[in-house]
Amino acid sequence: MAAELTADTLIARHRPTLDQALEAIRTRAYWSPHPEHPKAYGEHGSLDPAAGRAAFDALLGTRLDLGQPGTDGWVGGEVSPYGIELGVTYPHADPDVLLPAMRAGQGAWRDAGPEVRAAVCLEILKRINDRSHEFAHAVMHTSGQAYLMAFQAGGPHAQDRGLEAVAYAYAEQTRVPATAGWTKPQGKRDPLTLAKSFTPAPRGIGLVIGCNTFPTWNGYPGLFASLATGNAVLVKPHPRAVLPLALTVAVAREVLAAAGFAADLVALAAEAPGEGIAKTLATRPEIRIIDYTGSTAFGDWLETHARQAQVFTEKAGVNTVVVESTDDYRGMLANLAFSLSLYSGQMCTTPQNLLIPRDGIRTDQGPKTYDEVTVDLARAVDGLLGDDTRANALLGALVNPDVKARLEAAADLGEVALASRSVEHPDFPGAVVRTPAIIKLDGAKPDADAGYLSECFGPVSFAVAVDSAAHALTLLRRGIRENGAMTVSAYTTDPETERAVEEICLEESAQLSLNLTGGVYVNQTAAFSDFHGSGGNPAANAALTDAAFVAPRFRFIEVRREA
Amino acid sequence: MAAELTADTLIARHRPTLDQALEAIRTRAYWSPHPEHPKAYGEHGSLDPAAGRAAFDALLGTRLDLGQPGTDGWVGGEVSPYGIELGVTYPHADPDVLLPAMRAGQGAWRDAGPEVRAAVCLEILKRINDRSHEFAHAVMHTSGQAYLMAFQAGGPHAQDRGLEAVAYAYAEQTRVPATAGWTKPQGKRDPLTLAKSFTPAPRGIGLVIGCNTFPTWNGYPGLFASLATGNAVLVKPHPRAVLPLALTVAVAREVLAAAGFAADLVALAAEAPGEGIAKTLATRPEIRIIDYTGSTAFGDWLETHARQAQVFTEKAGVNTVVVESTDDYRGMLANLAFSLSLYSGQMCTTPQNLLIPRDGIRTDQGPKTYDEVTVDLARAVDGLLGDDTRANALLGALVNPDVKARLEAAADLGEVALASRSVEHPDFPGAVVRTPAIIKLDGAKPDADAGYLSECFGPVSFAVAVDSAAHALTLLRRGIRENGAMTVSAYTTDPETERAVEEICLEESAQLSLNLTGGVYVNQTAAFSDFHGSGGNPAANAALTDAAFVAPRFRFIEVRREA
Repeated sequence: MAAELTADTLIARHRPTLDQALEAIRTRAYWSPHPEHPKAYGEHGSLDPAAGRAAFDALLGTRLDLGQPGTDGWVGGEVSPYGIELGVTYPHADPDVLLPAMRAGQGAWRDAGPEVRAAVCLEILKRINDRSHEFAHAVMHTSGQAYLMAFQAGGPHAQDRGLEAVAYAYAEQTRVPATAGWTKPQGKRDPLTLAKSFTPAPRGIGLVIGCNTFPTWNGYPGLFASLATGNAVLVKPHPRAVLPLALTVAVAREVLAAAGFAADLVALAAEAPGEGIAKTLATRPEIRIIDYTGSTAFGDWLETHARQAQVFTEKAGVNTVVVESTDDYRGMLANLAFSLSLYSGQMCTTPQNLLIPRDGIRTDQGPKTYDEVTVDLARAVDGLLGDDTRANALLGALVNPDVKARLEAAADLGEVALASRSVEHPDFPGAVVRTPAIIKLDGAKPDADAGYLSECFGPVSFAVAVDSAAHALTLLRRGIRENGAMTVSAYTTDPETERAVEEICLEESAQLSLNLTGGVYVNQTAAFSDFHGSGGNPAANAALTDAAFVAPRFRFIEVRREA
Repeated sequence: MAAELTADTLIARHRPTLDQALEAIRTRAYWSPHPEHPKAYGEHGSLDPAAGRAAFDALLGTRLDLGQPGTDGWVGGEVSPYGIELGVTYPHADPDVLLPAMRAGQGAWRDAGPEVRAAVCLEILKRINDRSHEFAHAVMHTSGQAYLMAFQAGGPHAQDRGLEAVAYAYAEQTRVPATAGWTKPQGKRDPLTLAKSFTPAPRGIGLVIGCNTFPTWNGYPGLFASLATGNAVLVKPHPRAVLPLALTVAVAREVLAAAGFAADLVALAAEAPGEGIAKTLATRPEIRIIDYTGSTAFGDWLETHARQAQVFTEKAGVNTVVVESTDDYRGMLANLAFSLSLYSGQMCTTPQNLLIPRDGIRTDQGPKTYDEVTVDLARAVDGLLGDDTRANALLGALVNPDVKARLEAAADLGEVALASRSVEHPDFPGAVVRTPAIIKLDGAKPDADAGYLSECFGPVSFAVAVDSAAHALTLLRRGIRENGAMTVSAYTTDPETERAVEEICLEESAQLSLNLTGGVYVNQTAAFSDFHGSGGNPAANAALTDAAFVAPRFRFIEVRREA
């Protein structure tokens, strides 16, 4: 049967985008082929908001049959952080049937080569991009993100991260030529000559273990990196955030089949409540690559026990802001207030510990004491979120009851500089929407009473009074080294302090944002230019995306013959 | 104090070689800047054989003081496989002093950038290359390799592998620009603009755990990959093969100091007999990269326990030759005989299991039964090694008593097709020189009696009678998957069998040599062109050298500021 989409068609359609992506990861200038403005998807047509909403609504209460082999039941039970039950059920897989079926398609997928694989991946991303409004609803009602953020971070930005991984995968697979002649002189004798071929061959099956908060954004890099390097990919979503990845798997299967490959190269592994299939799957011999985003405890478990696989993890970290001095006090407060509020602080990149000298800081508005900075920051957050419509648009909903419980317990950790308040959602009365809390802590206290040394995931940050800038730097270094950090931020007008913060980040392997006072926030990274995490501190063993993230997913297999 | 060697001097001296190496790893054509013929080093001068011999002789019985901090004693005790005691003692280190001293130099080394680091590495390699004759004696009298092999594999070929790692390290570190501007349009509002810097930053200290048989060839890739990516490197040699790596460390320290860097960026960790410091060092928090060549048991231990480090291992494998048919029977026999004899089969790439259909094979000399092939191969080995001078030049000495014991026990495993014999060495009466044994086994026997399923390191190979080509392929696949393989070789004139062997190697991740009948041997790989191991089967988790071998040794650290 002829493929509906030929290799030539796919390459002609997507090679220009691939080339632009390859150029972007080389220059690291701004670039994206996926518009982030919802209006770019039209207001009256198949891609428009109404069509996306209708497609999402049509999914509710249905069985999402992916046509996977080894389906032995149907599972589901997602409840939106906005209070509605999704009622979607998904195939439950027997791995003894599904995994062999996934392997069966790998030979043809490998033989297709890096360019065709990249083109197929780009077709998958294009079809997902066309459905960005539908995906936005799916992300919103699983992660709790507000609609615009769910649209952008769960749609175009996630697609960018997927495409970035495809570009890196293509680049690394094509550094070695497909064939080479080799002629070694032997003095007066005939030279030795060999003909060699080099094939990027997959490791096996990649397992993507999704997270609750950013199912697509955190899931796509591993999914596309493994698929583009020739591996089949099994997607095990977080039980509370299945739909966005199930739709992704559906699109991938549709495109693979249309291009003449086995649909089973991408499959879903949904689970019954409490089943805990990740551990079982992660140690299967067929699984040779694992991408994981989630808790440190399970990430460490995977790194220790899934020894048959290359394990890429993003775990917990404690993100620090050093507040030493600023020449734009209002800009700093506004920038920090936004960072703390966005998605109720439920980003792995959200700052947690603000280290502020207890004697105060120098600013363009004159010296400010620790108490003044804390009060002014609380006011900035209040101002930003004073209007409930804007508050809802920024905060989204708390992703799960654990975050709510943690927020409620935070007030006991120290003096409350800013209390969290509930916000009513006009459309979803069941939504749990909360503004962030800021707690004052003393950085001079012994560790046992410190309170800020481990991750407190959610809308809680700590204004930590430190003895001096030097003390802040000591705590910064220790925090990165012991607890990891996805981001570090610093405000300083002092070149020596700036240099010292940079040196700490270089030595302890953390990504640094300096003096952000405008419309770029420490918790946001842009694909093709910014690295997400460093892979060099305890918060993550991988960065999105660099060569180290893709190169170990395949091996060059050489065949040599006498020429 | 001004550096004796400036960055400009070093770059001017070595950039052309680096550029050629970068081109070679891209085209994978034949290339080497290190002549492999001993005569290329002159016959009357500072680099000549006599000078090398004199330098080696002058080392015997001395204390090799490297000037390392934290030296708390002197250890040694190497006995040459050729029977002489080296009597060299080396510094024993207190890691609590040495490791912090090594870290102290990393900031300046990191700040020097990839090009200067590459140039320093190339200067180290150049000075080692100039002393290739001296190193040859050191390798010969620790590994047991015959002089010419010790010269080539321990000298120029090892230097090639080191340079290859430097080239890969440079390439991967420079894929991202040092700085980038980023401007994101914001519709009618001002664009967001950021200035970004990207610095390849080291992980920490790299630990190289050397092996007995190829201290330099297997040690240089990890050493130079870690050093070139900004890490300090601690070299822990095999207690029986300290001298070649101690000399390497001495040269590295001399060049680093001359270039104005801390000599302590490279240091030696020699140990007292039975001390077992590898385990202690491998789990130190300062050690973030480990390169290991040796037993599967300890490699697995490292992968499991040294979780704070990136662990690159080359362990044991079982290398298979499928003998199905040939159009050059004599060439095949000669080629196999050489492969089995070279360095008494003590290469990780030496074939162990020759799978031969019990009904015989088709050849250009007519059909040959299993027994005929076995007898003819034994004769070919006998012929190759009939002359004691040539035998000594090919075989070298058995590296240690374990290999000798294993060889002596092999005769009990099956019918002896070729018995091992002792060869007298004219210069070293204490040398243990043995010709290889070939044992006949039945591939139809149950596993418990099979004998050939695990590695039998040393001059022992098994002529395994199999039921058919299909049976051979089943055993081949199983062997790679369960026990790993550094090399696979096949002889076949049948396109279908050839295709099937290729498919197995692609699926199970093994490097394949097809129908070698001339002067290239399956156990030899050439830097810049051939991969050594695949990193995808149990024999090794890394390949020499690909991007996956260097990219995880450093992290890109980004600093971004508003522009």
